[in-house]
Amino acid sequence: MRFATLKDGSLDGRLVVVSRDGTRAVAVPRIAPHLIDALQRWDAVRQPLEDVQSALDAGPMDGAFAFDPRACAAPLPRSPQWLDASAFLNHGRLMERAFNTPPIPDFDTVPVMYQGASDDFLGPHDEVPLPSEADGIDFEGEFGVICGPVRMAATPDEALGAVRLIVQINDWSLRALGPHEMKTGFGFLQAKPSTAFAPIAVTPDELGDAWRDGRVQLKLQVQWNGERFGEPHGGEMNFSFGELVAHAARTRRLTPGCIVGSGTVSNVARSAGSACIAERRVIEKIDQGDIRTGFMRFGDRVRMQARFDDGRDGPFGVIDQRVVKLAEGAR
Amino acid sequence: MRFATLKDGSLDGRLVVVSRDGTRAVAVPRIAPHLIDALQRWDAVRQPLEDVQSALDAGPMDGAFAFDPRACAAPLPRSPQWLDASAFLNHGRLMERAFNTPPIPDFDTVPVMYQGASDDFLGPHDEVPLPSEADGIDFEGEFGVICGPVRMAATPDEALGAVRLIVQINDWSLRALGPHEMKTGFGFLQAKPSTAFAPIAVTPDELGDAWRDGRVQLKLQVQWNGERFGEPHGGEMNFSFGELVAHAARTRRLTPGCIVGSGTVSNVARSAGSACIAERRVIEKIDQGDIRTGFMRFGDRVRMQARFDDGRDGPFGVIDQRVVKLAEGAR
Repeated sequence: MRFATLKDGSLDGRLVVVSRDGTRAVAVPRIAPHLIDALQRWDAVRQPLEDVQSALDAGPMDGAFAFDPRACAAPLPRSPQWLDASAFLNHGRLMERAFNTPPIPDFDTVPVMYQGASDDFLGPHDEVPLPSEADGIDFEGEFGVICGPVRMAATPDEALGAVRLIVQINDWSLRALGPHEMKTGFGFLQAKPSTAFAPIAVTPDELGDAWRDGRVQLKLQVQWNGERFGEPHGGEMNFSFGELVAHAARTRRLTPGCIVGSGTVSNVARSAGSACIAERRVIEKIDQGDIRTGFMRFGDRVRMQARFDDGRDGPFGVIDQRVVKLAEGAR
Repeated sequence: MRFATLKDGSLDGRLVVVSRDGTRAVAVPRIAPHLIDALQRWDAVRQPLEDVQSALDAGPMDGAFAFDPRACAAPLPRSPQWLDASAFLNHGRLMERAFNTPPIPDFDTVPVMYQGASDDFLGPHDEVPLPSEADGIDFEGEFGVICGPVRMAATPDEALGAVRLIVQINDWSLRALGPHEMKTGFGFLQAKPSTAFAPIAVTPDELGDAWRDGRVQLKLQVQWNGERFGEPHGGEMNFSFGELVAHAARTRRLTPGCIVGSGTVSNVARSAGSACIAERRVIEKIDQGDIRTGFMRFGDRVRMQARFDDGRDGPFGVIDQRVVKLAEGAR
């Protein structure tokens, strides 16, 4: 199944089922008005929602309308928790060199994860207002999962079984603020403004074989101001989403709708490029001796789209955002 | 005004106004069914809620009933964000020695703050199920504020003006897990299970002169298994709540209901005792050469109550919780 959330002025927006060809959608208020509602009552709504998906894909349907990704909020405009890992060790090791921070202990055996703000996510085409270019504005292309309930101390297998939906993420980062926050030991806060999501959240079966070993086996194609930036592959993730979700649930139960992210998708092969600027910069320093790429300027755009190995578009739709200067007095 | 939330099986519970003598309460479903709803519509509901408070305090009132703190959830059973600082530098400096972590850079000029889980708070008398005593189970007595909307990049004065309610907090901590998570730079996650709150959230005016300089000028009396543990004073906080909230809002707007905590209340004077076990342990090590106090065992209780300087009870009511072993298969 493929879900999106249309903006309607409410905090949770309006849930729609999206056709598999991405052209049409239909609201399902009598089954579940919001995606969070569907996640909270998953066992009861799953079959009715599958019936809607089948009918929508089969042809004309009462109430169906043209799907407009520009009208979308994040699939979950707010969620109970947003926990983001750094599960591509290649990225993490490069970041240690970029920020000159000490090696993370047990980095290859114990996931690292921070908790981000989950009350104010950005939609796939929302502008990104930020206060200052001097903060080192960067994108981070990621995959993530949205979970059903997970008990405290769940095993990785149980945790993997609780994955309900898969999403594509742009975890906006402010690189000038991150190293200080890491040194405090308290983790990222100011360095992580609102996170953005591609319009469509999908059940794992929509990925077919590309949902394998608890990993999203897709490339994440990233463009900055229309130029190719990279297309690292999600299969190189060093922990499975089952392991990540179990890590999150070690001492807390997770309520339905909790989102767990992979961290920046990153491959060892330099030819894959990068899914964030900070990584390209440190590679420039290592490989060429000096940093040649600056961070984002106001007006810059970033575009992210997942692709199957055979070149087909991934099912999540496109993130395409522009960074703008925060307006004086803006809420 | 004094608010509490009664458990009713829903995620947000049922908002009640509590009489100033703490004996009676009345629900206000026609004004605001939940506290989060009141916070989202504060300007519209403030006067009607004040009228209810006045009528309730004046004498018998239709619909009023005996107030039972044991029936309470946290005032906000879930909130958009829970951001906890470490604003008592005395505590922070002792923790550096306890955990043998490097000094936090700029600790006396820039607040440190982590984001905790805000989807599953504990009520004041809820049992605290945790998986293992070996995790180093500890309490942390704190004060906190619940905010209205705060714009991104708000000043400390604006942020202080956005404080709607003041709360008393027990930020449960697992000390065996914290140092590793600090060393990752990603901050606390497993080290911070669900946080608990005293039953009553109050508007700042309820504290009178004890809400001064953006600080809660009350003692926090802590007892462990019925024995005195400490009564450190909130006035010694090294940052104001205005400064803390502004720090939180530097690169994100805060939506109504965001909770910002002080971190463990802690005083330089040894005679004040402590509001967490880790602090007592490091003081024992420093002053007496060895650690004599262990962390909590299953079955242990902690009780926390604020007091005015003249000995009167604070307005928040009592936190009184028991730690229990997580049941096999428990949700």
